[in-house]
Amino acid sequence: MRTYTAWPGRGLASLNQKEADPLPLGPGEVRVRVRAMSLNYRDLMILEGSYGLPEAEMVPVSDGAGEVIEVGAGVEGWSVGDRVIGSCLPAWTSGPMPADVRRGALGVGGLGMLSQEVVMPEGAWVKAPAHLDFEEASTLPCAGVTAWHALFGSTPYAPADWVLLQGTGGVSIWALALARAAGLRAVVTSSSEAKLDRARQLGAAGAVRYANNPDWAQEARAATGGVGFDRVLEVGGRDTSAPSLTALRPGATIAVIGGLSGFEGSISSLQLILGGLSMVGIYMGSTDHLKALVRFAEAHRIRPIVDRSFGFDEAPEAYAYLKSGKHFGKVTISLD
Amino acid sequence: MRTYTAWPGRGLASLNQKEADPLPLGPGEVRVRVRAMSLNYRDLMILEGSYGLPEAEMVPVSDGAGEVIEVGAGVEGWSVGDRVIGSCLPAWTSGPMPADVRRGALGVGGLGMLSQEVVMPEGAWVKAPAHLDFEEASTLPCAGVTAWHALFGSTPYAPADWVLLQGTGGVSIWALALARAAGLRAVVTSSSEAKLDRARQLGAAGAVRYANNPDWAQEARAATGGVGFDRVLEVGGRDTSAPSLTALRPGATIAVIGGLSGFEGSISSLQLILGGLSMVGIYMGSTDHLKALVRFAEAHRIRPIVDRSFGFDEAPEAYAYLKSGKHFGKVTISLD
Amino acid sequence: MRTYTAWPGRGLASLNQKEADPLPLGPGEVRVRVRAMSLNYRDLMILEGSYGLPEAEMVPVSDGAGEVIEVGAGVEGWSVGDRVIGSCLPAWTSGPMPADVRRGALGVGGLGMLSQEVVMPEGAWVKAPAHLDFEEASTLPCAGVTAWHALFGSTPYAPADWVLLQGTGGVSIWALALARAAGLRAVVTSSSEAKLDRARQLGAAGAVRYANNPDWAQEARAATGGVGFDRVLEVGGRDTSAPSLTALRPGATIAVIGGLSGFEGSISSLQLILGGLSMVGIYMGSTDHLKALVRFAEAHRIRPIVDRSFGFDEAPEAYAYLKSGKHFGKVTISLD
Amino acid sequence: MRTYTAWPGRGLASLNQKEADPLPLGPGEVRVRVRAMSLNYRDLMILEGSYGLPEAEMVPVSDGAGEVIEVGAGVEGWSVGDRVIGSCLPAWTSGPMPADVRRGALGVGGLGMLSQEVVMPEGAWVKAPAHLDFEEASTLPCAGVTAWHALFGSTPYAPADWVLLQGTGGVSIWALALARAAGLRAVVTSSSEAKLDRARQLGAAGAVRYANNPDWAQEARAATGGVGFDRVLEVGGRDTSAPSLTALRPGATIAVIGGLSGFEGSISSLQLILGGLSMVGIYMGSTDHLKALVRFAEAHRIRPIVDRSFGFDEAPEAYAYLKSGKHFGKVTISLD
Repeated sequence: MRTYTAWPGRGLASLNQKEADPLPLGPGEVRVRVRAMSLNYRDLMILEGSYGLPEAEMVPVSDGAGEVIEVGAGVEGWSVGDRVIGSCLPAWTSGPMPADVRRGALGVGGLGMLSQEVVMPEGAWVKAPAHLDFEEASTLPCAGVTAWHALFGSTPYAPADWVLLQGTGGVSIWALALARAAGLRAVVTSSSEAKLDRARQLGAAGAVRYANNPDWAQEARAATGGVGFDRVLEVGGRDTSAPSLTALRPGATIAVIGGLSGFEGSISSLQLILGGLSMVGIYMGSTDHLKALVRFAEAHRIRPIVDRSFGFDEAPEAYAYLKSGKHFGKVTISLD
Repeated sequence: MRTYTAWPGRGLASLNQKEADPLPLGPGEVRVRVRAMSLNYRDLMILEGSYGLPEAEMVPVSDGAGEVIEVGAGVEGWSVGDRVIGSCLPAWTSGPMPADVRRGALGVGGLGMLSQEVVMPEGAWVKAPAHLDFEEASTLPCAGVTAWHALFGSTPYAPADWVLLQGTGGVSIWALALARAAGLRAVVTSSSEAKLDRARQLGAAGAVRYANNPDWAQEARAATGGVGFDRVLEVGGRDTSAPSLTALRPGATIAVIGGLSGFEGSISSLQLILGGLSMVGIYMGSTDHLKALVRFAEAHRIRPIVDRSFGFDEAPEAYAYLKSGKHFGKVTISLD
Repeated sequence: MRTYTAWPGRGLASLNQKEADPLPLGPGEVRVRVRAMSLNYRDLMILEGSYGLPEAEMVPVSDGAGEVIEVGAGVEGWSVGDRVIGSCLPAWTSGPMPADVRRGALGVGGLGMLSQEVVMPEGAWVKAPAHLDFEEASTLPCAGVTAWHALFGSTPYAPADWVLLQGTGGVSIWALALARAAGLRAVVTSSSEAKLDRARQLGAAGAVRYANNPDWAQEARAATGGVGFDRVLEVGGRDTSAPSLTALRPGATIAVIGGLSGFEGSISSLQLILGGLSMVGIYMGSTDHLKALVRFAEAHRIRPIVDRSFGFDEAPEAYAYLKSGKHFGKVTISLD
Repeated sequence: MRTYTAWPGRGLASLNQKEADPLPLGPGEVRVRVRAMSLNYRDLMILEGSYGLPEAEMVPVSDGAGEVIEVGAGVEGWSVGDRVIGSCLPAWTSGPMPADVRRGALGVGGLGMLSQEVVMPEGAWVKAPAHLDFEEASTLPCAGVTAWHALFGSTPYAPADWVLLQGTGGVSIWALALARAAGLRAVVTSSSEAKLDRARQLGAAGAVRYANNPDWAQEARAATGGVGFDRVLEVGGRDTSAPSLTALRPGATIAVIGGLSGFEGSISSLQLILGGLSMVGIYMGSTDHLKALVRFAEAHRIRPIVDRSFGFDEAPEAYAYLKSGKHFGKVTISLD
């Protein structure tokens, strides 16, 4: 079978497509023919060396969808032909994050989705939503689950809460769709007027330009009627954490998701204290989170936004396009 | 009546005792003869200008206990002679922190306890624990409540959790007593061997010296059998936040309480994400938190540690002693 | 001013309109000209003697909306002309239910809304939603808050949860509107096809006839795809509790709200145990619940369904109409 | 190997010891030599036909401890000689109860512990507490976990809460030890003065005789200073549910655990509503609950009370002794 490998820290140039032996299939395991993958900014950071992984050859990409083509001894839940998506963190099935959360994780050092076939234990696969094609379905495991976890899976929320979404990447656009269907009010930031327009069309209750706008956080806050946000989905990192804090109401939460501008940043603990504010690290989510997301997406017929799709041979171009920041929603790779 | 005033930002020298008119007593209000106060590090920061308050004359100190000497029209819950303690944040009665949390707050700009008499609405007073004298009781409203809120009043906890307590100041020593009575395991840090010994005698499951010890967080973690802490009560701020993060188990929480070494500090959001870690700002607590603490202290007959008591005329000396860092537990001021 | 009184246990015949002295206005209190009231089934049970109140003259009705016409000394939050609704349980401001929850409660023995004027402390009044008229606004304090509390204010919920609503009375129809706006899926039961049709038009995901239908709970369950409900809002009591239990998924919750068929009923604790099921008593809610409901209703421009409105002189007819069970949504009484 | 089988509904007489083929060992599975079992009242109800199981031959008993004697292919977590206890509900690993909770459950129809050997997947075994012998360790999986779940694993609790424990059977005595170490205050009921004395010696804050005492619930409530209980661990069922409700404070919870006097019982939903009370079914617990219990028991060196131990050949006598109700704590069966 065909697969890609890459080296953390050696950049996109290390992406290398090659022929590999089929993976062995043990008892309780399921072999899936990958039909689509979606890229996350994390996949880019890993190759560029800013995600802290050791420099060792790996199969990249954590998110994928496909069809079951073979089941191991004792597998009861799956049959050949089932449409599935893979859980990014299969060791985390339910409840709080376990200590061994990275055991068997996809796209971070061992197994990855950028391959024609993937083998995982049966519990690591989840039924794909019936109303989505493979490309759409491939956006759930990391981007969709992260948005779900950050909105509904950690700190309690109330319908009508105000949510601040930074930018129009995969997690933020997923979060916009989820927030809207759950009765929350989302304000989206972007450096592009065109993207802000599109966010408004998708149901954003507010849209704020942050390029050349040092007061973006105050403008965003004004969109809540001055009350402040109940939650921020922080994907910006170093440069946005401090402004984000000023946009919150007392008792609110920053869901810490990414570090587009870097992961190190200074925050004021006095602000945390006086506002009773929380910062909660969101590391994707459990298989239960993924199942809850599938249920929700089906109930509300949510279709993720796929910005552009590439062929399997074009994986490096897909990475480069993601890096360009031109996308709105997800960048995917498709296989026949 | 005699009272002190002071100016934020003008230091201890601005502490000034003087004669003042008795405070008016409105309907629903209760006049209390203050019998003891306790100092918090925050009181010191306020005078030194590092707590962000405007430079305006104020009555300092948030924590006090005393006797009811007069009740206003319509007051039903209190009678002359009742032993009471004052809630630091009387606008916060129950549930989540309200937006107007600082309305009527003690020791941060308006009313303060460093006075012979204080008048507050009846709901702002709570029955003092029957087994404590006034000095001991005066340590509950801020230090005790902060420790309670950080351990039991915010993020869920489990008995047998590991808790890291920084230093041996008022909040940490309160937290040690609370943790022990609730079945938690506390590890205490200090720069002094004598203080570590005393913490062990009070029931600390571990004690770690941090002076000249860059590996203190790893040593503390080792005291948990390598599993990591479920919670840190962060009073150190700038210099201790980053090491504290390394001492946690996945999914754990830093309760952000103080900033002895400064409030600005750089933290790694990648660490928050990968560990599913939370930082939760703890701003004292509600009247309900105070009542819960009183119930608990009575049930377990917990006696706070009063390091040293000063007379009303010695208030500046009390502040100076707190600043010296020689104390173990609380510094109080007593009135007849 | 004109007011009604009545006697618990003496039935509708005890409703008596009369002239009364204006209520005194103390410091911190607010006088409101009542412009509309809404009836709850509880108001009927009280007069009929099945709610356990002592037989003593009282002003009935808990739910009302009106205009501020006078403010007492020290009132800061309200001005003459403000449009307000009253909290049914003003002693419960926030957080968990307090022990003195019935102190100052409306319509259960002391003060009631079936009057031209009502005086309560300023904290007992909440701003009426701007988009609602007085009749609509009068349906929030008890029916709306109960629905809110049962759906969002007690046990955690997830968007896309399945909710079973019994009948088409005030609480159930409020719950249908709330559930829909928050992304939940509601199945409604009724004995009337016409009412079921109307529930479908309002967004019910399923509608089940229970009259002459011993299998209604199983039919309702089938509407969830066989998965079972995450929550039931139990208003039926004796005759519906047992079937409701069979309609739940493992780990689900019955929010116990009312007892249209009686309050005593046999349940199987083995069913509770094996299913990990919960029954949670919902007693209206706090002022914070009411404020959250107002925020939500404004955000989603939810308009409660007023079935029919009566004049102040027609109060007995309004009660009788409620008793007939012909209504869909709320029965109100209006004043100029 | 030797094993017992029995038939639900055919009573103790159906207990039959016999020789059986060794169980096959699949990949990922672990074979354990059982060294001790403990009986639960549920085991008795199953044989007597009051637990609703189909009449089919089964291996009884859910609780056991032993040594690993063989590991299947791919098992990484266990080695021969490890001391382990089995999870009663191995399909429930973490988080909320799953729909397939009874898949692979012990002692309820398929596999059971009353055997010389048991085979389960590696994740179904948990390390036995180091300070306990096999008999003591065998009491954790059902009785210990149920007590843990009811106290700490479901509804939030606060240290110093008042807990009502019914009788002195396995769950109640486990709960007494847990409550005490976690700072809760437990009141125990019993029909025997001798047992009440023993409960007091073990740290009960109150002890109430219920035999010939219709006011036992009010007496128990008086032991809380009249405030009422925060939680009841309801093991009595039909005859005790109603009195239990009267012993609670507003907002409190009944953890529904058992039905010694029958599972059907009438409760007043009006009482649930007016008190904001909850009834929560507790069905043993997850493997995570069991691990948390092991951690807690080790931290506080809690030793379960083993009332009396029987030999493998005396299993029927052990059941009969449990049925007699003479025990205080657990009844166990031991193997060499």
